[in-house]
Amino acid sequence: MNLPHRFTGALAVGGSVGRMSVSHGAAPVAPKKPVRVGLLGCGTVGNALAELIAKDSAVLAASTGLGLEIARVAVRDATKTRSVHVRPESVTGDPESVVSASDVDVVVEVMGGVEPARSLILSALRSGKPVVTANKELLASHWSELFRAAADSGVDLLHEAAVAGAIPLVRALRESLAGETITSVMGIVNGTTNYILTKMSEAGTSYEDALAEAQHLGYAETDPTADVEGHDAAAKAAILATIAFGQEVRASDVHTEGISAISASDIAVVRRLGYEVKLLAVAESVDGGRVAVRVHPAMVPLDHPLAGVRGSFNAVFVVGEAVGEMMFYGRGAGGMPTAAAVLGDLVDAAHNLRSGGYGRVSVPIRAHIVPIDELVAQYFVSVDVADKPGVLATVARVFGDNQVSIRSMEQVGLGDEAHLVFLTHTANEARVQATLAGLETCDAVKRVGALLRVVGEPEGTR
Amino acid sequence: MNLPHRFTGALAVGGSVGRMSVSHGAAPVAPKKPVRVGLLGCGTVGNALAELIAKDSAVLAASTGLGLEIARVAVRDATKTRSVHVRPESVTGDPESVVSASDVDVVVEVMGGVEPARSLILSALRSGKPVVTANKELLASHWSELFRAAADSGVDLLHEAAVAGAIPLVRALRESLAGETITSVMGIVNGTTNYILTKMSEAGTSYEDALAEAQHLGYAETDPTADVEGHDAAAKAAILATIAFGQEVRASDVHTEGISAISASDIAVVRRLGYEVKLLAVAESVDGGRVAVRVHPAMVPLDHPLAGVRGSFNAVFVVGEAVGEMMFYGRGAGGMPTAAAVLGDLVDAAHNLRSGGYGRVSVPIRAHIVPIDELVAQYFVSVDVADKPGVLATVARVFGDNQVSIRSMEQVGLGDEAHLVFLTHTANEARVQATLAGLETCDAVKRVGALLRVVGEPEGTR
Repeated sequence: MNLPHRFTGALAVGGSVGRMSVSHGAAPVAPKKPVRVGLLGCGTVGNALAELIAKDSAVLAASTGLGLEIARVAVRDATKTRSVHVRPESVTGDPESVVSASDVDVVVEVMGGVEPARSLILSALRSGKPVVTANKELLASHWSELFRAAADSGVDLLHEAAVAGAIPLVRALRESLAGETITSVMGIVNGTTNYILTKMSEAGTSYEDALAEAQHLGYAETDPTADVEGHDAAAKAAILATIAFGQEVRASDVHTEGISAISASDIAVVRRLGYEVKLLAVAESVDGGRVAVRVHPAMVPLDHPLAGVRGSFNAVFVVGEAVGEMMFYGRGAGGMPTAAAVLGDLVDAAHNLRSGGYGRVSVPIRAHIVPIDELVAQYFVSVDVADKPGVLATVARVFGDNQVSIRSMEQVGLGDEAHLVFLTHTANEARVQATLAGLETCDAVKRVGALLRVVGEPEGTR
Repeated sequence: MNLPHRFTGALAVGGSVGRMSVSHGAAPVAPKKPVRVGLLGCGTVGNALAELIAKDSAVLAASTGLGLEIARVAVRDATKTRSVHVRPESVTGDPESVVSASDVDVVVEVMGGVEPARSLILSALRSGKPVVTANKELLASHWSELFRAAADSGVDLLHEAAVAGAIPLVRALRESLAGETITSVMGIVNGTTNYILTKMSEAGTSYEDALAEAQHLGYAETDPTADVEGHDAAAKAAILATIAFGQEVRASDVHTEGISAISASDIAVVRRLGYEVKLLAVAESVDGGRVAVRVHPAMVPLDHPLAGVRGSFNAVFVVGEAVGEMMFYGRGAGGMPTAAAVLGDLVDAAHNLRSGGYGRVSVPIRAHIVPIDELVAQYFVSVDVADKPGVLATVARVFGDNQVSIRSMEQVGLGDEAHLVFLTHTANEARVQATLAGLETCDAVKRVGALLRVVGEPEGTR
C-alpha cells in the first residue's frame, strides 16, 4: 500500500499547505467520489461548514483522499438566503427527506433543540447513516437512546462540537486518554458568562452593563437566561461527565446556579483575597463510582490556569491519575470554530464509512449522582445589611449556629450600600444552605447576594 | 452488533469508573486474547507503562474489549531491578529478539536516542508490526524514513508522547483539526527551562540558583545543556511543525537559542514592561507554503495564555484559520504522564491491528524553511556597559546606524552592575544581528546579554 507517496506527490505539485496524514484503515478512496453530506439546519454553523468544505476541499482531498460534498440541506425557511456554497436546488424544508435520501451518506445535525433533531438523528442512525451533531441539549437529555441506536446499527455518532466548540476535547477524553482514570473535569464552558465576568473583574463594570455589552457584541442572546442562569453550561457539564466517567449524566442531574446575583464589588473583594470569579462546570468522580456534577460561580485561585481564561474563551481543566493536570483552551462558540469541529468529525465519519468500520460507541449506565448536600467546600457569601452597630455579630452568629466556621469577614461599602462578605473554612453544603435560610429570616439582613464556592485550591490550604 | 450492551454490563457489575466507548471498527475482540507488547527500554517511562497496564487492564478490557500484555522487554542492563509488573523471564538484553519475536504484536520504543532505536523501529515496521514511540530525537531527524516504512507496510507509527508528554496534542492536530489550516504553533515544550524561568520571575532567583534547584528536584539533568540551550525544544518544534504544516521539519532546521544569558534583572524589567519571559518553540506557515521555525527566549504579553504557564508545565498554543486560538496545557514529562500518552497510542494501535486497518500515515515533503534573517519582530536587548556619561547615546547610536528603531530604553543597576536594556520597534532580524555585532565591538560595552523576541502580541500594538 504505497498510497501515501501519491498523496505526497499531490501535496508537492499543488504546493498546498495541507496537513499530513489520514488514510484511515482500509483502501484509499479516490477523491473523485465524494462522501455526500445531508445537512440539517443551515444557520451560522451550517453556512460556515459549507464555506469550510468549499474552501478546504482540495486540501482535504489531498491529505485525506476524501471528497466531501453537501448534497442536501434542510432548513426551516427555504426562501432565506444561504451561503453561496449551498446550492439552492439542494435546499428543502423537509428534513426527513434529507435523512432518507439515497444520495446522502452522512447526516450533520446543526439545527439544535431536542425535537425534531432527536427523531431525525434516530432515523438516520437506524438507516445506517453516521451522524455528526453539535446538539448539546439533545445529548444532555437522550444520550443512551442515541448511542444505543448508533451501536445497534454499527455507525458513528460524533459530537466534538457540542462541548467547548472547536476545542478537540471529546476526542482527547475518548481516545488519547483511553486507559486513563479521570478524577475530575472543571470547565469554563460558556463564553457569554465568561465575557461578562471578565468585564466585571477587569473594568469594574456592573453586571447589567456587562450583560448589555455582551448582547451588543452578539455574545449574549436577547433573552440571556440560558447563559446567565447556567443552563447552557449544565448541558455541557452533563456531556463532559458522561464522557469522562463513562456514566450517563443528564442536564437535569446537574445542580445549577447562575451569575446574576454577583456584583462587581463582590468580584473586587474576591480578587483581593487572591481569586478570580468564574462560572464553572465541575464533574468529579467520588467514592469509587458516584459522580458529583454541578455548575456554579466559583472562586478560582489567581494562579490556577482557569483563572487566566478571559473574555469569551472556553477552557476545560482535566485531572487524571496518571496524566496529572491538563487544560484545553479555545473558542467555545462561533460559526467557524464550531464548523471546524464538525468538519473534523465529518472527516472521521466519512473515513470510517469508507473503510467499513465505525468509531467508538458504547452505551453507558446511568450515573449515580452525589446529592449537592454532600458537597464540602469553602464558601463566599455576600450579604446586604442595614449598617447598624452589632449587625456583623448578629450575622456571624447565624454562621456559628449552623456550625459553619468563618475564615474571614469584612464590611464593604457604607450606609445603604453596606454589605458583609464572608469566606468560610471548608463546610458542608447542607449546613451552608441552612445558614443562608437563617440569614434570610434575619432582621438585619436585607438580601443574601452572591454565593461562591472555592474550586481548584491546592489541598492543605484551607 | 449489540456488543456495547455487554460492555455496559461489565462496567456495571465491576462498579468500575472506566470511561466509555471504544469498539473500533470491526468485530469485538474477546479480552481473553491480549495484544502482546514488546517493550524497548524499561527506564522511568517503561516501568510506569508496565504499572499502568497492570493497574488499568480490567478497565481497559471492559471499556475497549482489549487486553494488553507486556510480552517481552529489552533493556541495556538485564540484571537491574524492574517494576514488579515486568516479569523477569520477559527481560532480555537483545532488543532485536524482542522486535522479531513471534509473540510480540506491537512494539513500544521508549529507549530514546537515534540508534539503535531507528534500526529497531524500521525492522518492526518492515515486519508489519505497529510501533509506538516517545522518541523526539529520532522523529526530529528521520521522520520521512520512518513514516515511509510505516506506510509501505500499512502499519501504525504513533508518537503522542514525543511532544508535550501527556497532552493529547498530536492526535488533535492530526485528526480533530483535519481540514483546518493551521497558521502557527507556539509552545512551552521544555519543563526544565520553564521551571527555571518561573523561579527567576516569581522569586527573583538567579539563573544559576534556579538551575541548581531544578537539578535538585530532578527536573534538570546533571549536564543541563540539552534543556537550557534549547536543543530538546528544537526537536519538539520540528515535530510540531511537521504535523501542523504537513512538511518534514528537522531539528537541524530550527534556529535555536537557549536561556543561559538571561538574568533575573532582565526578567524583572520585562515584567515591568508587561511581559513574561518564556522559552518558546515557534512554528509559522508563511508566504503560502514556507515554514518559519525557531526556539528562543521570548517576551510574551502577561495576558497571553502562555504567560500563565508556570513551573514545569508545558503548553502549546495553536492558531488555525477557522478554529482561531487554542491552547493545550499539561505535564510535558515525567514517567506516568508520558506512559499515559504511550498507553493511549498503544490502545489505538492494538485496535487498528485487531480491526485489520491502520492509522493515518503519510510521508510529507521536506519543508521549505524561512531563514531566520527574514524574521521581523520586536526585540529586547540587554547590554552590560561601563557606567559613564554618554554611554547610552553611544550604544543607542549603534541601533540607529543599523536602522533599528528603539521603542524604549532604560538603565538598570549602577556602577559595575550597570546595564542598559532596549526594546525595539519591529525590526528585521538581520539588522538586529548587525546591531549586536556592532555592540560587541563598542568600547563602552562589556557584554551583550539577553536577546529576547516579542511573541504573541496582538497586531497593531507595535
